[in-house]
Parts: sequence; structure tokens; C-alpha cells
Amino acid sequence: MILSALLTSVGINLGLCFLFFTLYSILRKQPGNLRVYAPRLVAERKLKQKAEFNLERLLPSAGWVKRAWQQSEEDLLENSGLDGVVFIRVFTFSLKVFTIAALIGVFILLPINFLGNQLVIDFSDLPNKSLDSFSISNVNNGSKRLWIHFCAAYVFTGAVCYLLYHENKVITLKRIACFYASRPQAHQFTILVRGIPVQAGSSFSESIEQFFTEYHPLTYLSHTVVRQTSKLQQLMNTAEKLYGTVDQLKSEERTSQGPQRLGLFGNKDRHLRTLEKKLEVTEDSMRTEQSSLNKKDVPAAFVSFTSRYGAATATHIQQGVNPTEWVTEQAPEPDDVYWPFFSASYIRIWICKLVVYVASAVLTVLFLLFVVIVQGLTHLEQLESYFPFLKSILTIAFVSQVITGYLPSLILQLFLSFIPPIMKILSSIQGYISMSEIQKSACNKVVWFTIWNIFFANVLSGTALIQVNVFLEPKKIPTLLAEGVPAQASFFISYVVTSGWTSVSSELFQLVNLIWSLPRRVFSKKVADDLKVSSIPYESEVPRILFFVVLGITYFILAPLILPFLLVYFCMGYLIFRNQLLNVYAPKYETGGKYWSIVHNSTIFSLVLMQIIAIGIFGLKDLPLASSLVIPLPILTLLFNDYCRKRFLPILKGYAAECLIKKDREEQNDPRMTEFLENLTVAYQDPALKPSQYSRNTDRQTSPLLQPTEI
Amino acid sequence: MILSALLTSVGINLGLCFLFFTLYSILRKQPGNLRVYAPRLVAERKLKQKAEFNLERLLPSAGWVKRAWQQSEEDLLENSGLDGVVFIRVFTFSLKVFTIAALIGVFILLPINFLGNQLVIDFSDLPNKSLDSFSISNVNNGSKRLWIHFCAAYVFTGAVCYLLYHENKVITLKRIACFYASRPQAHQFTILVRGIPVQAGSSFSESIEQFFTEYHPLTYLSHTVVRQTSKLQQLMNTAEKLYGTVDQLKSEERTSQGPQRLGLFGNKDRHLRTLEKKLEVTEDSMRTEQSSLNKKDVPAAFVSFTSRYGAATATHIQQGVNPTEWVTEQAPEPDDVYWPFFSASYIRIWICKLVVYVASAVLTVLFLLFVVIVQGLTHLEQLESYFPFLKSILTIAFVSQVITGYLPSLILQLFLSFIPPIMKILSSIQGYISMSEIQKSACNKVVWFTIWNIFFANVLSGTALIQVNVFLEPKKIPTLLAEGVPAQASFFISYVVTSGWTSVSSELFQLVNLIWSLPRRVFSKKVADDLKVSSIPYESEVPRILFFVVLGITYFILAPLILPFLLVYFCMGYLIFRNQLLNVYAPKYETGGKYWSIVHNSTIFSLVLMQIIAIGIFGLKDLPLASSLVIPLPILTLLFNDYCRKRFLPILKGYAAECLIKKDREEQNDPRMTEFLENLTVAYQDPALKPSQYSRNTDRQTSPLLQPTEI
Repeated sequence: MILSALLTSVGINLGLCFLFFTLYSILRKQPGNLRVYAPRLVAERKLKQKAEFNLERLLPSAGWVKRAWQQSEEDLLENSGLDGVVFIRVFTFSLKVFTIAALIGVFILLPINFLGNQLVIDFSDLPNKSLDSFSISNVNNGSKRLWIHFCAAYVFTGAVCYLLYHENKVITLKRIACFYASRPQAHQFTILVRGIPVQAGSSFSESIEQFFTEYHPLTYLSHTVVRQTSKLQQLMNTAEKLYGTVDQLKSEERTSQGPQRLGLFGNKDRHLRTLEKKLEVTEDSMRTEQSSLNKKDVPAAFVSFTSRYGAATATHIQQGVNPTEWVTEQAPEPDDVYWPFFSASYIRIWICKLVVYVASAVLTVLFLLFVVIVQGLTHLEQLESYFPFLKSILTIAFVSQVITGYLPSLILQLFLSFIPPIMKILSSIQGYISMSEIQKSACNKVVWFTIWNIFFANVLSGTALIQVNVFLEPKKIPTLLAEGVPAQASFFISYVVTSGWTSVSSELFQLVNLIWSLPRRVFSKKVADDLKVSSIPYESEVPRILFFVVLGITYFILAPLILPFLLVYFCMGYLIFRNQLLNVYAPKYETGGKYWSIVHNSTIFSLVLMQIIAIGIFGLKDLPLASSLVIPLPILTLLFNDYCRKRFLPILKGYAAECLIKKDREEQNDPRMTEFLENLTVAYQDPALKPSQYSRNTDRQTSPLLQPTEI
Repeated sequence: MILSALLTSVGINLGLCFLFFTLYSILRKQPGNLRVYAPRLVAERKLKQKAEFNLERLLPSAGWVKRAWQQSEEDLLENSGLDGVVFIRVFTFSLKVFTIAALIGVFILLPINFLGNQLVIDFSDLPNKSLDSFSISNVNNGSKRLWIHFCAAYVFTGAVCYLLYHENKVITLKRIACFYASRPQAHQFTILVRGIPVQAGSSFSESIEQFFTEYHPLTYLSHTVVRQTSKLQQLMNTAEKLYGTVDQLKSEERTSQGPQRLGLFGNKDRHLRTLEKKLEVTEDSMRTEQSSLNKKDVPAAFVSFTSRYGAATATHIQQGVNPTEWVTEQAPEPDDVYWPFFSASYIRIWICKLVVYVASAVLTVLFLLFVVIVQGLTHLEQLESYFPFLKSILTIAFVSQVITGYLPSLILQLFLSFIPPIMKILSSIQGYISMSEIQKSACNKVVWFTIWNIFFANVLSGTALIQVNVFLEPKKIPTLLAEGVPAQASFFISYVVTSGWTSVSSELFQLVNLIWSLPRRVFSKKVADDLKVSSIPYESEVPRILFFVVLGITYFILAPLILPFLLVYFCMGYLIFRNQLLNVYAPKYETGGKYWSIVHNSTIFSLVLMQIIAIGIFGLKDLPLASSLVIPLPILTLLFNDYCRKRFLPILKGYAAECLIKKDREEQNDPRMTEFLENLTVAYQDPALKPSQYSRNTDRQTSPLLQPTEI
């Protein structure tokens, strides 16, 4: 890729970003768009809808930037929970890391790279200059200047580790502080028990009651056996929909009883009869289903305790003699429970897990084929040889620049957007019991999927198409990476500009939601009251951000030109996501910043990757001494990682006895606790059996059958 | 190696075994040898020493075999604890596995191998026939008969997995039963706390008292802060020895006050004065040391609870907010505590661990060089080319047969005997707090050391000297092993015969102890009362047995000729170790069969190794379909292993809440518990500070200083 192609790409994307920003700042002020750009504020009824028109509404303004900037971390914590704070801290952490990187990279490494003459360069023609002349490939082989790159690797690793340690410390302290500040929450007092053994003649419920009253007599409070309600839930949804339609049809019938509609009325009448028939059938099956629910007990239950410490004790110590029975784990928040999948037996969960691992691997491998084809687009000659009829079009300079600079990453981007939902489905099969766990696991899968399928596939497809072979010869990996990674520098710089910049600005603009909202506004007269405020889709956003962190750290030594573009990305991301957290997204549940471990792991991974590539590149550049002297660096980094895992990971996973007991004591004499504990006994009822689910629809006249029966 | 060489070796070793057995059955009946052959019975005063002489004492008899055989598992459990039972069960498990293997191997695989004609064989000369003609190498390439080997691999894997599952189940059930049957023991109620944080102005003791009375008010009983007593311990030992010598000299002085010894007396007098001076100096330093002991508190303490469940709760839940502080673990038995090494900080233990890993790796690599040289002895030509002057000796048939059949494994054996103590030292640096943990860790290290340095070094040195290279190209491993492993079959058959048979029979004969006991009996007139009964050196015995298991499983398909020899080994081992457990060894502490996990792991490892070699060998034998069809086998085996780890490992590691609470309740109303809990508060005092240590020496007049002062 030449410099002018990059500049074209930067130009297009800057233009797009600017366009998005301008449009956003105008559109967000239109009252009709409030449900797109500030659904959270609408839902929380924090907005006064000004109906009168004024000129100001049509002028772009940067007020939102100011508001996003001014928000303090305390506000953020209150608005979006610790998860939101951690999410924003990923940006600040990246900004810190890449500011240091950019200072070293742009002011020290870039000039050195540019002044080398390993690659044949025509100094007169800067715009047509290959981007490779800004990369380490341009430094002369065996040059003493490479020692500066060597020092940069050490300094940068030290800096990143220091920042990582600091960030870990801050986040874990915040997590504990949040715990101390929290009101009593159902999930803190509750555990999930699976693999409940049962004696002949007694039910699961009796078995649980007996076990916990015997072994936890002081702290045991109550339990809720999980039931297989997925079928009932489906039937209920169907019935609810049918009832809604029937209701609407009936009301229309009532209002339009004129002779002019007689023909139509006959049709509608028939339709109404069919629907009512259907509704009856559904209600019948629901009745059958409900009466058989008692037999559909799953050997799993939510068991509540009177204290947090009691619950933690039951989670941490193996309860039954057989470790595959009475398996306990911390319960998720009631809203966070993933009801559809409650794998019954230990073995089944275990098999599901294995199947999901295999499925993820297959998905990853199949995706590679696609990536290889897309990657071919950056090599115009290859494209021409595959599709000869394109030759005439590709000779036009602008077209070829767009294709090499823009199209590949756009296609990749499109297909990658299908991955997070797929991974989420896979994770949900894996046997997690909470949405947040599923989301976190999907997030982790997507991170590694992205790194493998974008980074490695791109880097290695030019040199070795079948990657598996490479990983069977680990000795060659540093050299192979050192050859492949710098060669793809231009692709990734353009990737940052196109994919990175566009993704954050389109996040702000919410194009899809905007388009979706239009037909609804035109056709549906009454504005439905049930506005759904979504939470941040962590499983797609976190991997995207982390991938840029990986790119930045990996290319820090090789092609520092990428760093300024990354800084722009993280600055934009910081502002835009603060704005979105304020206006758009509302957290559904809180994990207390558990996502941070994924960030930590991928940062360590990219550091080690950078160091391995450094080993390879110093070898290639005829500086074997530097190559060997880098070897301690990955070892030290991994030791640092090991220490951090010991020091911080336990805090992210659970809470210490000290915290739990302190918190329990604080509330011991709180009069509100009695009420809380009373509510706790019903907190973990399946929504399919809960009356509260229908409270939303009480404005309609609900069919008596939709009221769940007492079981 | 040819058949006659093997037969020579078998002959020599059978003779040796027979000799040992005969000598043993005679010598054990001599009263003077009781301290060698039945120290346990002597110590427990279970033997009536018959002084009168009769002829029966000089005749060999097999009564000990009968006694060893008749002993029931309950007796064994009572005598040697669960560790002893598990140790013997390793033999019965191996016997079961290799009976199945031998049935398939000798009656099905061996004839098939022998009837092949891949290797050029002269049928007329059986004694000079290479042992390779009994191995799979002799089956014709691409022969359909190899499918029988293929089936054998599947059947054998299934059988071993079934037996392993069964054994795991039996052992875990026994472990729980033993726990229920046990009397209250100090270590069940106690935990070790490390990384105790301390506020300025307060001591560790106050800090612990405060923390546990605050967070475990109901179950906390007492604590004992650990002190750095290694120096005091050393001084005490020196003082004790000096005092003993002075005492003896004085008493001699008193009895022999005649003029005839005047010259000698002057000398002795001077010697006595020097010793007394020394004693004084030592006592002075002891005084200084004791007075400064208060300042030598280590941030570690044994904390006792009033219930087992209380202790378990404190172990399983992270106590302090910072996971590197208040680190808890289950305390070992008081006699099992390894006092000399109490690493203070979390970081220091962590660094020590890393250092030990590196040291073990270095030891392993350095030992390889030595093995390579020894391995050369089986190739006579190589030896002749290295040492030309040996040519004339080596032409003598007997010498060459002894050298190839006997010498290499003897030398290896000798050097290997230094490894367990070295590994034990390394493990003790690793920061374990109990002897049993150190022993178990050393055992594990020695197992892998043996497998690597005997198995892999022998197998690969012929084909690829620098093994590290091999493991960097994992794709080639199956082929490489398939080439190397069958080629070394004859070496390992002779290894089983020489090293295996000799080791068990010499275990019975206790040659070293017998020789050591002779001078003592001759020169020392009074028989010292403090007879030391040792426990089984698991760290050297378990790896030896497991190595034969690995050999047997690995060579099951390749060279079934090894199996009968292994069966003989395990039969002898079973009888002899039962006898030794009865007469010689007494357990010092009990781990409750924790060693079993090492046995399980190495069995799984050898199964997978066997399967990987099978993949390679079917490939080499032009049967690619069989080669691919074996691939699911290691995957299934690893899945089985994963299941077992989940199902049984937790039981080997700790006890479930159910067990602990049941046991606690049982003893709740036991009047003896009050006394037990009172004793518990002093159970974990450092022996250097305990009065009881000197009670042994109360028959001598102890120096008042040797009485530990109250601190």
C-alpha cells in the first residue's frame, strides 16, 4: 500500500466521521429521534420534551461532547455500574499505553525507520512511497540503530506492566468499595445447587430442605427448585401474542360496524374465529403443561441463606461426598438468570462444554477460508488473475485505491458482525446459568476468534496458508511472524482507520436503529409504552477494542505509524462511549467488572506476541545478540502475569470472608433486612411462573389463564 | 540383544533373588538381626526374643511369605494406615492390569509377531535369535494381522480405564471411611495462616487474635505463631551432643582412676576441658538466641478451631481482602510439619517455587548426558570404537553378555538412587510446610525424571540425540517414537529383570542396613534404646514401581515379551512389601492416600503414550487407516481422565462439608473432646521449644539449660 492510498482512506473516513458527528448533533435534538438517541433518558423520564420549534435545533453543536467529558467517574458508576466504569477505563488505560507508545514510536522509532535504506526508495515521490519505508523493514540489516528498537521493547513492556498493575489495583479496590456500598442484593445471599441426588419416594424439594437444614441449620433460609419451563414459556408467548391480536381485532370490529365494510367484515370475522380457536388450543396445552410442571423438576435449585457469608461458605466448600452431586456456585442476579438452559446432570454439562469447544474450533477454521479470500483483495495482481474481466476497472486509480484501502476491511467487518451472536449462542449451550456469564464467555471467544482470524490469518496467509502446520513447528514461529507481521502493517493501518474509526462513529450515529425507527413512527400511530433500553453488547464491543490494543502493542516496534491513528480511535471511543452510556445504554445486570480479566489477558498476550516477533525480527536483521537478549522479556512478562493472577484475580472472582462478614454485620440490625429476606424467598422464581411478568400488561384485559397458577 | 543374553540375565537375577530369599529366611531368625529385619516389631515390643539356639534357626523357610499373604486389608490399614493400603493397592492394580495384558500379549500378539518375517531370521538357531523377532517389528508391513494389534489397543485401553475407575472409587470410599473412623486429630482442627499483615505497634500474635476473634468468633480456639528456630535447633543439637560426650568421658574418668592410665589421663583431661569450654560457649549462644526469639516471629501461624468444619471454612474462603495476605491452608499433622523452612512472604515462596522448577529442569537435562553414555554400552561396537583396548576382553562371550545384559542398568540404577534425595531437597525449598507434601512432590518429580531420563533418553538417543529438537516438531513425534521405542525393547526387558527383580529382592534383604548393623553390634556394647523405625521412602519406591507400569503399558503392543517378567516383578513386590510393611516400616504420618493421584496420572500418561506410539507404528507398517482410527483413542482416554479428575480428585484433596459436619456432630457430646481441645492449643509448638523433646533423655542428667525456657 502506498501513502496516497492510506491518505485516501483517512480522508474518506474522516469525512464519514465528520458527517456522522454533524448529523448526530442535529438529529439528536429532534424530539422524534429521542427514542433512538436517548432511549435511556426517555425510559427514565429524565427528559422534558420541548415541542416548540426553534432554529437552534437545526444547527450542529458540540454540547454532547462537553456533557460526555464533564461526567465524573462517580456519576458513571451511579449510572452504569462498575461494568460501565471498567468499560470506560479500558479506553483510558489504552490511551495511557498508546500515548507512551506514540511518544516513543513517532519521535524516536519512526525517524530511524525512515532514515534506513534497506528498501529501495525514490525520495522525490513521497505520495507514492510504500508505507513499508516507515516500518522496521527499512532499517539496514545489522544496523546499530536496531538497539534503540531493542531498548524501546524493554521500556514499553515495563511501562505497560506498570500501567496494568496500577489499573488492576484501582479496579479491584473499586470493586470492593462498590460491594461495601451496595444495598443487600438477592444474588449475594443465594447459591445455585446442581446435581441434587434424590432418594426413592422423595422429591428434589424435600431432598434440598433436608440437606440444608441438616448441614446449614443456622444460615439456610429457603429454596426454589428449577423447573423445565421452556415449553410453558413458549406457549405463554404464543398465547399472549394471539390474545393481543384478538383483542385488537375485536376493538376494531366494535368501532367500524358500518355496512360499508360488510365484505371485509366477513373476512375479518372468519379470521377472528380462527384466531380464537387457536387461542383455545394454546390455552388447553398450557393447562396440560402447567399440570405436569410438578413432574418437570430439574435437579437444580436456588438456595437462599440469611447471610452473605453463609452463602459463600456453601459455595466454596464441596458439599456432598460425591463431588458431582450438590455442586454449588454463586447465583447470578435474578434478572441475569438464563432460564432456558438448565442442563440437568453433571455429565451433560460436561459433554455440552466439550461440544461447544469443538464447534468454536470448527467455526474458527472455516472462517479462515473466507479471510484468505478477502485478504487477496489487497494484492491487486491476484485479484486480476482470478477475475480477468475486472482488469479494465481496476486500472482506474481511484477504484483500485478504494478496493485496496477500503473494501477488504469493510467486507471483513460485515462478516465479523455475525460472529458475536453465534458465539453467544455457543456459550449459552455451554451450560452457563447467567446472561452475564454467557456474555463474558462469548466475549472471550470473540477476542480469540478475532485475534486468530484477523491477525494471524492475515499475517500468515501470505507466507503459509495452512496455519496449523506452522503451530506444529514452534521453533519457526518467531521468524515466520517476523516475516509476516511487518508485511501486513499497511493492511492493519488501513484497518484501524476504516474499521476502527467507522465503528465508533456509527456507534454514535446508530444508523440501524435510526432506520428501524422510521417505519414505526410512520405506520404505528400509538407509541408503544414498552421501550426497550438495551445494555452495551460487551461481547462485540470489548473484542473490537481489545483487537486494536493487540494491534497497537504488536506493531509498536514494527510500524509505529499505526499509533497516531489508534490514539484518534481511542479518543473518539472514550468520548462516544461515555455519551452512549449516559444516553443510550442502561445496565441490565452487574458483574462487578469481571470483564477486566479478559482485558488483562489480552494485553499480556499482545505483549508476549510483540516480544516473540522482536526475537524473530532481530534475528532476521542480523542482530542475533539482541534477539537472544529479548528472550528474558517474555519470561518476565509471564511471571508478572502470574503474579497479577494471584494478586488480583481472586478479588475479581469473589469476595473475601473479611468483606462478607463486615457487610453482614453492618446490616444485622437494619430493620429493612426482615423485609428483604422475606422477598428473597420468591426472588428466584422462574418468570414463566411469576405474576410480576404480567404486571406490565395489566392495562390490557388479560385472559384469566395467563395468570400463572399457584404451584 | 539376543535371546541367550536375556536368558543369562534372567538366570543371574533369578539366582540372586533366590540367594536373597534364602539368606533372608535364615538371617531374619537370628536374634541379632531383629533390628534389621523387624525394627518395627522390636520398637513396638511385639517380639519375644528367644535366646536358646535350635537347628530350625539355620534352615531356610517360607513362613514369612505365608504371613505376608495372610494379612488382611483391615490389618494393613491398622498397621500402616491408608497410605500403606494404597501403596499395596498399586501392586494389586498393576497385577490386574498386567494379567489382562499378558493374556492378550503372550497368547495372541506374541505368536503373531513371531510368525511374521519382516526381519531376516534364521529359524534353526533359537538361542542366538534377536529379541526383536518377538516384537511388532517382525510383523510384515501392511499385514492384515496388524488389525489384531489395533483391536488389542482398544480392548486394553478399555480394560485399564475400567480398572482405574474402579480403583479410584475404592480408594476414595476407603479414604472417607477412614476419616469417619478416625479419632479427632490436631491437624483436622488446625489451619496454617501465612502472610499475616501487621499494624505498627502490634505483634503478629495480636494481629491473629484480633482477626480470628472478629471473623470466626464461634469457632476460633487458639493460635501458635511460628518462630525462626532453625538456629536454636542447631545449637541445641550441638549442645546435646557435647553434653553426651562430656558425660561419657566423666563416667569413664570415674571408673578408670588408676595410675596405669596416668599418661592417657592427662590427654583425656585436656580433651575434657576443651569440650566443657565448647559446651559453655554453645550454652551462651543458646541463651542469646532464646532471648532474641521473640523478635524472630515469622508472619505465619497455626490457628486452631473448635470444629473441623470451622477450620475447613477458613481454609476454603479467601480470608483477607488482599489475596496475598491471610493465606490459609490445611495444617499438616504436628509430627509432619517441616519446621526448618518457613518462607516468610508470599513473594519469596513464589520465587522459590520458580527457582526449584528451573533447578529440576537443569538437573534433568544434565542427567541426560550421563544416560546417553550408559546407553552406549548396549551397542558393543560403539564401546569398542570408544575404548579400543577393551576389544580383546569384549570378544569373550560371557563378558559381552554381562556387559550388554547387566552392566548398563546396574550403573543407571546406582546413579538414579541419588535422585530421590536430591529431589526431596529441591521440594523442601519449594515452600511446602509438611514432610508428606515434600515427599509427594519429590515423588512426582522423580516419576517424571525417571520417565524422561530412562524411557525417553534411551528411546531417542539412538535416533536423535538432542531431544529438545524433537519436542519442537510435535508432528514427527509418533513416527519417531514408533521407530525408537521398539528398538529399545530388549534393553527394557533386561532392565525389568535386572533392576526390577533385584530392587525388590534387595529391599527384602536390606543389605545396606545389614552391613551397617554389623560394626555397631561388634563395637558398641550397650544397645542404644532409641531405635529409629523409618517409614517407606515413597519418593523412591513409588516412582520405581510406576516406571515399570509405564514400561508395561507402553510395550504391551510393541513387545509383549516384557509382560511375563513384569508380572513376576509385581508378584514379588506385592509379597515383599506386605512383609516389609508388617515388620520393617512404620508410618510417621498419614496423608490419607494422596499418593494415588500420582499413580492415576502416570497410568493415564502411559496409556496415551502407548496410543501415540500405536499411531506411529501403524503408519510405519503401511496401515494408514489403522493409524487414523487410533486417533480417537487418546482423545477418549484424556476425556476419561478429565472426568476422573472431576469425580475423584476433590475427595483426595479434602473432605466435603457433609463429612466434616457429620464427624463434628458425632463428637459434640464426647467428654474427651474438652481434653482434646485443651491439648490442641499446644499441639503445634515448635519441637525446639517443646519440653517433650527432652523427655527422651531424662534418664541422663540433663543440663539445666537444655530445658527450654518459657517464652
